[in-house]
Amino acid sequence: MKLATVYYRGRDLVATEIAPGELVALASLPGRQPGAPLDMLDIIAGGEPLKEALRTSLDKIRGDESVARIPAAEVRWYPPVRRPSKICAVAMNNSSSNERKISAPDHPAFFLKPLSCLVGHREPIRIRRYYGSVHPEPELAVIIGRVTRDVPATSALDAVYGYTIFNDITGNGMRAEDRFHYWAVYAKKDNPNETERVEQHLSYAGRYKGTDTFGAMGPWLVTKDEIANPDDLMVTCKVGGELIAEDSTRYYNYKVAEVVSFISQFQTLLPGDVVSLGTAFKPGQGRKSIHHANFQTVAGPVEIAIEGLGTQENPVVIEDKELGAWRLS
Amino acid sequence: MKLATVYYRGRDLVATEIAPGELVALASLPGRQPGAPLDMLDIIAGGEPLKEALRTSLDKIRGDESVARIPAAEVRWYPPVRRPSKICAVAMNNSSSNERKISAPDHPAFFLKPLSCLVGHREPIRIRRYYGSVHPEPELAVIIGRVTRDVPATSALDAVYGYTIFNDITGNGMRAEDRFHYWAVYAKKDNPNETERVEQHLSYAGRYKGTDTFGAMGPWLVTKDEIANPDDLMVTCKVGGELIAEDSTRYYNYKVAEVVSFISQFQTLLPGDVVSLGTAFKPGQGRKSIHHANFQTVAGPVEIAIEGLGTQENPVVIEDKELGAWRLS
Repeated sequence: MKLATVYYRGRDLVATEIAPGELVALASLPGRQPGAPLDMLDIIAGGEPLKEALRTSLDKIRGDESVARIPAAEVRWYPPVRRPSKICAVAMNNSSSNERKISAPDHPAFFLKPLSCLVGHREPIRIRRYYGSVHPEPELAVIIGRVTRDVPATSALDAVYGYTIFNDITGNGMRAEDRFHYWAVYAKKDNPNETERVEQHLSYAGRYKGTDTFGAMGPWLVTKDEIANPDDLMVTCKVGGELIAEDSTRYYNYKVAEVVSFISQFQTLLPGDVVSLGTAFKPGQGRKSIHHANFQTVAGPVEIAIEGLGTQENPVVIEDKELGAWRLS
Repeated sequence: MKLATVYYRGRDLVATEIAPGELVALASLPGRQPGAPLDMLDIIAGGEPLKEALRTSLDKIRGDESVARIPAAEVRWYPPVRRPSKICAVAMNNSSSNERKISAPDHPAFFLKPLSCLVGHREPIRIRRYYGSVHPEPELAVIIGRVTRDVPATSALDAVYGYTIFNDITGNGMRAEDRFHYWAVYAKKDNPNETERVEQHLSYAGRYKGTDTFGAMGPWLVTKDEIANPDDLMVTCKVGGELIAEDSTRYYNYKVAEVVSFISQFQTLLPGDVVSLGTAFKPGQGRKSIHHANFQTVAGPVEIAIEGLGTQENPVVIEDKELGAWRLS
């Protein structure tokens, strides 16, 4: 099933695709109180039994014209999960980037994006001049289905509810600015009563990964039963009609199950949480790459297609806004 | 007012301190439906008018013994805001760290912590051996009161609802591991159709800042009317009874209003969001520092006191758990 959260004729709805270009609201399905507010987190909390019940209901109403159809072209799309408790995203997980690494961790490294950066399908990505260079990063994302802590890789896919397309938009201009080169202090290993200084480079992703509209998600989440192998899905990304990435999730260094397992041994994953797997950025032969697609100079829209998950499209809007006075004196 | 979220006799409550060691549940206040579930986000959404009404009610019942008192010693403390939409934390904001910087941004740099890392006052900080070295970071945190975007520094305090104590627990062992030294790709400034490689160091805070129990918050939030100047508050931190930090928020490089203003020009801040200002870590004369307090070797509890905000105390528990099999082969 394809599950979406949409706005249609004055109401927020959880809806599913019943035919190409046609949605039905889940609140109107048999067995649900008409008009009762329903959030995607309620659907996810219902787990496999609710999913089965929904699927059966959908099969029944497929030929029943009395159930109102919603034209997909007329809705406004929210992110499929509007309030995930967190969004984790894996850094440099594409094997194409391995040759650029001088030194790197031998496990998934990840960062967080805030709820406030999320936008749905067709909503504008809003760029301000003072953000500097900004580019798209087309990614496969997992939607977590249950409270998950310490899951081994071999059963980690049990924790997954579904998949969606995530554009992990990145301000690489701000990325370059938010770095520290400094002397870190550590307790000495052989004598913890003394400290020593170690030269270290750190960087912080709050701005360059978390700025408003830097997380486009959707159009919908696709339940995992429809995705035979998440580790082998074609990904393409176009900006302004020009292909800038043609890749596959098979080139991720760490597979979906490995990433979910690893993160769960540090952070408890909650139903509805988003784990984005990393950028599929391999350019097609002789083509441009995501690194050319600086939204400051290249017009949108951004289109990301992932096999089995549909196509996400977002216009890019340049906002005429300067950085305001944030110093007191 | 001091506003807390607590568990008492089978119920989750928003409560306020009415006398030292005594709380009253806000749901039991005149004008509120008895037993109606109430979340701190509801209180915050009520803004100044609700705060005023609550204060008036509290004054009335201070001498009224018919309103049930809750002994503070008998509650279990949640984080005052249980589901903030995000937690932003500023990196290296203490002027004591300036002499250790070789190069650094000239604006606040920040990162995000997830909801799942939050624990309340008196809840255990749980450390596993495989986390490596972990230390406390005592910080002043702001609780945002309204939807805030592009607020200038001069009016940024209007966006603040209150303050709380935040222990931004940091796995500096994992911090050292989650770093990349690599060749970043950028579009050339003079010819965006070509790209160039730039040597860069990046690091990712997902594990070292976001691991479960790495965010102790509370005991309560204190409404801003009780804090005359957030930029001049004494902060102390003890671990196992030993003083490891004696500092003041006056030594932050960036003031509360500056940080809120700056972040709001990138991320929309929502009611209940947490912005933690940075570590107050200056050691007392000849004393140990936070860098000595590696929870792997130094027993808790951690006690953080901030002038006007009370004292937060958390035990430290070492969990006997190894990193499980996260690779598929």
